[in-house]
Amino acid sequence: MLLTNERNSMKTFENYESQVRSYSRSFPTVFKKAKGYKIWDTDGKEYIDFFAGAGALNYGHNNEKMKQKIIDYILEDGISHSLDMGTVVRGNFLKKFNEVILEPRGLDYKVMFPGPTGTNTVESALKIARKTTGRQNIISFTNAFHGMTLGSLSVTGNEALRRGAGVALNNTVSMPYDTFLDDNQSIRYLKRFLEDTGSGMDLPAAIILETVQGEGGINAASFEWLQEIEKLCRRYEMLLIIDDVQAGCGRTGTFFSFEPAGITPDIVCLSKSISGYGLPMALTLIKPEYDTWKPGEHNGTFRGNNLAIVAATEALSYWETKTFAESVQEKAQILKMRFEKIVEDYPELKADARGRGFMRGIACGEGKEQYASKICAKAFEKGLIVETSGPSDEVVKFLGSLTIDEEGLRKGLDILEEAIEEVVKQ
Amino acid sequence: MLLTNERNSMKTFENYESQVRSYSRSFPTVFKKAKGYKIWDTDGKEYIDFFAGAGALNYGHNNEKMKQKIIDYILEDGISHSLDMGTVVRGNFLKKFNEVILEPRGLDYKVMFPGPTGTNTVESALKIARKTTGRQNIISFTNAFHGMTLGSLSVTGNEALRRGAGVALNNTVSMPYDTFLDDNQSIRYLKRFLEDTGSGMDLPAAIILETVQGEGGINAASFEWLQEIEKLCRRYEMLLIIDDVQAGCGRTGTFFSFEPAGITPDIVCLSKSISGYGLPMALTLIKPEYDTWKPGEHNGTFRGNNLAIVAATEALSYWETKTFAESVQEKAQILKMRFEKIVEDYPELKADARGRGFMRGIACGEGKEQYASKICAKAFEKGLIVETSGPSDEVVKFLGSLTIDEEGLRKGLDILEEAIEEVVKQ
Amino acid sequence: MLLTNERNSMKTFENYESQVRSYSRSFPTVFKKAKGYKIWDTDGKEYIDFFAGAGALNYGHNNEKMKQKIIDYILEDGISHSLDMGTVVRGNFLKKFNEVILEPRGLDYKVMFPGPTGTNTVESALKIARKTTGRQNIISFTNAFHGMTLGSLSVTGNEALRRGAGVALNNTVSMPYDTFLDDNQSIRYLKRFLEDTGSGMDLPAAIILETVQGEGGINAASFEWLQEIEKLCRRYEMLLIIDDVQAGCGRTGTFFSFEPAGITPDIVCLSKSISGYGLPMALTLIKPEYDTWKPGEHNGTFRGNNLAIVAATEALSYWETKTFAESVQEKAQILKMRFEKIVEDYPELKADARGRGFMRGIACGEGKEQYASKICAKAFEKGLIVETSGPSDEVVKFLGSLTIDEEGLRKGLDILEEAIEEVVKQ
Amino acid sequence: MLLTNERNSMKTFENYESQVRSYSRSFPTVFKKAKGYKIWDTDGKEYIDFFAGAGALNYGHNNEKMKQKIIDYILEDGISHSLDMGTVVRGNFLKKFNEVILEPRGLDYKVMFPGPTGTNTVESALKIARKTTGRQNIISFTNAFHGMTLGSLSVTGNEALRRGAGVALNNTVSMPYDTFLDDNQSIRYLKRFLEDTGSGMDLPAAIILETVQGEGGINAASFEWLQEIEKLCRRYEMLLIIDDVQAGCGRTGTFFSFEPAGITPDIVCLSKSISGYGLPMALTLIKPEYDTWKPGEHNGTFRGNNLAIVAATEALSYWETKTFAESVQEKAQILKMRFEKIVEDYPELKADARGRGFMRGIACGEGKEQYASKICAKAFEKGLIVETSGPSDEVVKFLGSLTIDEEGLRKGLDILEEAIEEVVKQ
Repeated sequence: MLLTNERNSMKTFENYESQVRSYSRSFPTVFKKAKGYKIWDTDGKEYIDFFAGAGALNYGHNNEKMKQKIIDYILEDGISHSLDMGTVVRGNFLKKFNEVILEPRGLDYKVMFPGPTGTNTVESALKIARKTTGRQNIISFTNAFHGMTLGSLSVTGNEALRRGAGVALNNTVSMPYDTFLDDNQSIRYLKRFLEDTGSGMDLPAAIILETVQGEGGINAASFEWLQEIEKLCRRYEMLLIIDDVQAGCGRTGTFFSFEPAGITPDIVCLSKSISGYGLPMALTLIKPEYDTWKPGEHNGTFRGNNLAIVAATEALSYWETKTFAESVQEKAQILKMRFEKIVEDYPELKADARGRGFMRGIACGEGKEQYASKICAKAFEKGLIVETSGPSDEVVKFLGSLTIDEEGLRKGLDILEEAIEEVVKQ
Repeated sequence: MLLTNERNSMKTFENYESQVRSYSRSFPTVFKKAKGYKIWDTDGKEYIDFFAGAGALNYGHNNEKMKQKIIDYILEDGISHSLDMGTVVRGNFLKKFNEVILEPRGLDYKVMFPGPTGTNTVESALKIARKTTGRQNIISFTNAFHGMTLGSLSVTGNEALRRGAGVALNNTVSMPYDTFLDDNQSIRYLKRFLEDTGSGMDLPAAIILETVQGEGGINAASFEWLQEIEKLCRRYEMLLIIDDVQAGCGRTGTFFSFEPAGITPDIVCLSKSISGYGLPMALTLIKPEYDTWKPGEHNGTFRGNNLAIVAATEALSYWETKTFAESVQEKAQILKMRFEKIVEDYPELKADARGRGFMRGIACGEGKEQYASKICAKAFEKGLIVETSGPSDEVVKFLGSLTIDEEGLRKGLDILEEAIEEVVKQ
Repeated sequence: MLLTNERNSMKTFENYESQVRSYSRSFPTVFKKAKGYKIWDTDGKEYIDFFAGAGALNYGHNNEKMKQKIIDYILEDGISHSLDMGTVVRGNFLKKFNEVILEPRGLDYKVMFPGPTGTNTVESALKIARKTTGRQNIISFTNAFHGMTLGSLSVTGNEALRRGAGVALNNTVSMPYDTFLDDNQSIRYLKRFLEDTGSGMDLPAAIILETVQGEGGINAASFEWLQEIEKLCRRYEMLLIIDDVQAGCGRTGTFFSFEPAGITPDIVCLSKSISGYGLPMALTLIKPEYDTWKPGEHNGTFRGNNLAIVAATEALSYWETKTFAESVQEKAQILKMRFEKIVEDYPELKADARGRGFMRGIACGEGKEQYASKICAKAFEKGLIVETSGPSDEVVKFLGSLTIDEEGLRKGLDILEEAIEEVVKQ
Repeated sequence: MLLTNERNSMKTFENYESQVRSYSRSFPTVFKKAKGYKIWDTDGKEYIDFFAGAGALNYGHNNEKMKQKIIDYILEDGISHSLDMGTVVRGNFLKKFNEVILEPRGLDYKVMFPGPTGTNTVESALKIARKTTGRQNIISFTNAFHGMTLGSLSVTGNEALRRGAGVALNNTVSMPYDTFLDDNQSIRYLKRFLEDTGSGMDLPAAIILETVQGEGGINAASFEWLQEIEKLCRRYEMLLIIDDVQAGCGRTGTFFSFEPAGITPDIVCLSKSISGYGLPMALTLIKPEYDTWKPGEHNGTFRGNNLAIVAATEALSYWETKTFAESVQEKAQILKMRFEKIVEDYPELKADARGRGFMRGIACGEGKEQYASKICAKAFEKGLIVETSGPSDEVVKFLGSLTIDEEGLRKGLDILEEAIEEVVKQ
């Protein structure tokens, strides 16, 4: 009934929804159905999805295996909502997450359900760091994005979003991300501020970072930089918090984005694709020595979204062997080469191919920033969903599902290139 | 498979989950199935539920009508996750919410999807108030609970939770809630602080309040107090934010808790039972003149949890006629009388019956605070799930589902009284 | 030369000085000479001074004994400026202050030179309290005035002054001063906030207060209230800071204003009349157990204003016997009775006589606030310098020098009454 | 009497003064008398003074001309303390300051008396910048020193001093001073943070800086850097605040330290040597368009320290011709060459000669930091007063009076070199 008899025009959203709505402006249609890497609107128009719910749908839309588990669970009247009470589903997930993810990687973390969104896990991580160290300051990085609640916003770089707070955002300091300055100056700069006791930077409780900045413009940190950051954390007894909300859950080709850098964060933030089915869920992983919470000291109603956890448990199956990760890495290689070729073929863009794994972007150069928005708009017309990122929306960002097949990938990339060509020609 | 073959002992949670877990301590068993006002653990033990997922399950567990809609939607491969893109489901909800809830009540609000949890809607409300007025200060009240992220925590009263922040919580001032001082002194006090320009209280952007404080100990504000607060908001051009996350969605016997007080908030925060099926969802309702957001100025990945929205749309059907509200009010009367009788019958508790509608508590008097925890523990043994609230956990809190039948209600109350009797006798 | 050949008109100040200037607006003339309780302008007009440099000239203008000491010291090329180096003058003062002030009163304080102004001593006191307790919050009171630098301003009540900061003033909470609410409600209110762990008031490092609020409208706290405050400080391990900048140095009839209340503050702030000659100087008195400063942790260039210290040492002589204090108390009695009579005789003022010792005011009642400014302006015309205070400038404030003789006092009071009569008649 | 009959041992300070005392530890003797560049202790030992009251005695101790003016003024019973009332002395100063200092330099500033210390002028400057721009953030620099009250401390770099606050210091961001990074990277870095809207640095109200950092280690900014800073202020509509408290009043060879850089600050902070006689006084110079204060919006008891203003008026005479400035510049050249030679002659120090004008230092290199303290201690033994500065106290700092003659300068430098030689040899 919902899908067949009713038609919503964009008017509904214009009339009733707050001005804050954004994606219904970038993609001005009403969507109705989705499967894998495809999505359809009420006119039946099909789109290839290079957006994947802003990275929350790494396993594609309505993944069949998860779908079945969810339906079975609902039909059996399994607990849908449990806060952090003991449930069969939560127990199963905890065990499987340890077996499939943590143990094989030699990681020892306590698992916290901090509430079902990215900003919940980030806020909980900041609390732990400050409680544990007794320090108030947190280092975040230029063009970081960590969330919209006050604590997370205070470690987010974007000026327009920060202004939305209406209060001064404090107890944080923004340092240059690896790619913000040339020639490894970023790490040297941070070292200078830490080592000079007159630098005016109060000793921080933690450093929080994304190994690849998604909203900030698909900036990928080098492994050397990440290793240096880890060393500084050890030297100055700061906690290392990796916000793997967007770059984690396989997005860069390994479950955690930081694996190939050989670093071990003190706290890891996961959300977006952790449930796999696009259902709200988040985790905070905490080294046991920092798990000093008092019971209920951080809480929240929707910590126990069991439908999401059912899907999440199934999603872990992708990581039981290496096959899945390898397939992502292979497709990532195709993507990388195609993006590099596009950059070469369209010098008018003054572009730069960026990113790591299956998280990549084409950054249009100075004076060409507005190209990115035009390209995405044109691609949408042609049946491809892809969005921009970066401080000036100057980057065309690929976040397609990890399960996309090569055909879908190439088809989407062809549309993207057509869009680029048309925009450049205008 | 999930429900039949596997057994999780509490060990799983002790071993793998963070120390922050709390409800699995109060209710030390593993739950597997739920329906209406009943819930079962893996041993097959049945519990009557006077907790209702901390108020997120006003329509009972696994409500049949919603369940069917959700399953149909999943089977049709409806969009599960959409951020704030246009979807059929979001459009339908917006229209029905206007038709069934807002228009009949003469309310004109723009609807914002601020992210799927209570703290998301509160943080968005604080942002609007500060942006709109250009002021930074917010008035909240003693024993308020608004959430765990930094902005919401700064308007929350509980000392232990506030300390969890690890930073000073600022730009807020806590004023006495209606019930905090005797003889209407609370409102006089607030007036004095507002009218005296030397009071040291910077003129606030907004007043945020719960009409009945849930976590704070089931404190119900009088309608007169609420009306006085509204007047002060108008006089000093402060926005009035009603956090109806727990008291709204029918909990007090009307859809919004503030209806019988005859006030019109500038912003309303909804979450918990708005989806009805226990799925994460929240709304921020904003008077059009304050809907000054720039597109995307507040955002979040899980704003478009379409399964929750499907359930939420169905849940609105309960409000199409007056029947449902009236039935809640009738049962509330039974509850009220029973609680008052218990207070009378057990003078040893030095207790006080509190609350409004279907949100009530028995507050154990000074020196008897620990009775409340003992009563809840004893009730759990006997097959009743009920929790405490209040600054010293001194209140036994009833939050049973609104759909519970009289038999279930009486049965649960009988268990509760047995538990009280045993505790008092010890 | 300076005094005889040159004439400055008010034009000079209008042309060259910042708009922030204020007293040259209230008293629009150019002053040239002063002695005791008299002051003359360049036209030779004589004024009786009931203002005494805002309480910095308790021993009158250009006190003969101090004048001689200062001149001798300058002529001998004594060190004029020494920071906190050892100087003969600083050593002499420290010893005499202990002998004459601290020891006879059974007080044991370490003496800190925190910089030469009231706000320096207040800022140092707040630092000590926060360092010592590890807490950030400070309780101050409605209509408190503690200074204009950011820390002191954050414990000051006046809205217009607070706005001048241009940033949110945080880590403080304003509680009702004794006289702010009727019937001892102020202390009950504060107790409720301290005892209820859900009050939203973070446990404070200290309470800071003036025993008689000067700028806030000559509000005198009762001794009972002060004693209750001290008890709360002990119970909750908060430091008690008495800001005796205006009320101290004999203003209320004893050296410290808190003596008759029988309380012992942990920290005392002194400035204004501590030097006695109107020269910038301030002291912070610290109980030895809280003197946990590291060397130089608080510093400042003008901590060692030796001319001021020479005068301050001489000023202590007034306190070697009881004669001086008794004479102040006697004159205070005259002042009190006269103010009470005026209030009675001019019911049109709806006034209230307030204060303690030689720090008194006539507070014009509601709707009559502007009378106070008119009275002071009229008095100025008639040769009396007296200023207003209070949140609405509604109080005519007496701060005449402690050394004024009865004739001068009566003469000034007569002028004041004439001014009142004329204003009331208009 | 004061100087002849009494002897204070260091015991007095140890017994009665707070642990915060510092200079009486570095220079452990009791001083009694001073003249020009010489100072004597109670044992009659003579010291050459290369410290000059931390830069407050640019015209030497007890300058004869000022001394006479002060004594005359006191003898005539001139107003000693006036707040900001009109006085002959304040009027004279305002006119002469305009004639001698501002007009000849083409500067148009309104003069504010913000209270008598450096931190008062800095706090007032920050207020103006925030009020004027409506922004809260302030850029300060690494190793900056601006004062000890909360606002000034928040723009000060030193970690130990910042910790003294006991609260988080917020609404400020510390950027690298010119000399903090090599190769002009400091300015490039600041530009990057300003131009990238995702940098996480909220647009500041102002940049505050010292052209030569005194406490921070005698770091002299290049004129190019200062000019670039000014340009950035214009581009981003930030106010440029020059804190000339230590570097101003002739210290670098011109009245204002920024003159040779050709920049025009929006606000200038002056204190220390503005009175010339070591008496507490400060000024805030404000471009007329930013002089938007309401009357009394910033105030303070000791704004009108007329003895200081009498001396300050006389001090301006030094600037009526170019002779004085030229003599300082000549002596500065001698000092510069001698310091450079010392650095060359004692390679063991791994030292660096720094500074500008008559504000110079010898910075001992890495691993040799503790040499500086030893050198100063040794010099003190030998009759020279000189102190260290810098984040690790690694710099021997020269701040001798501008009026010192060549003989005194050379004699002091000889002692310093002897001390260095002995320390190096140990």
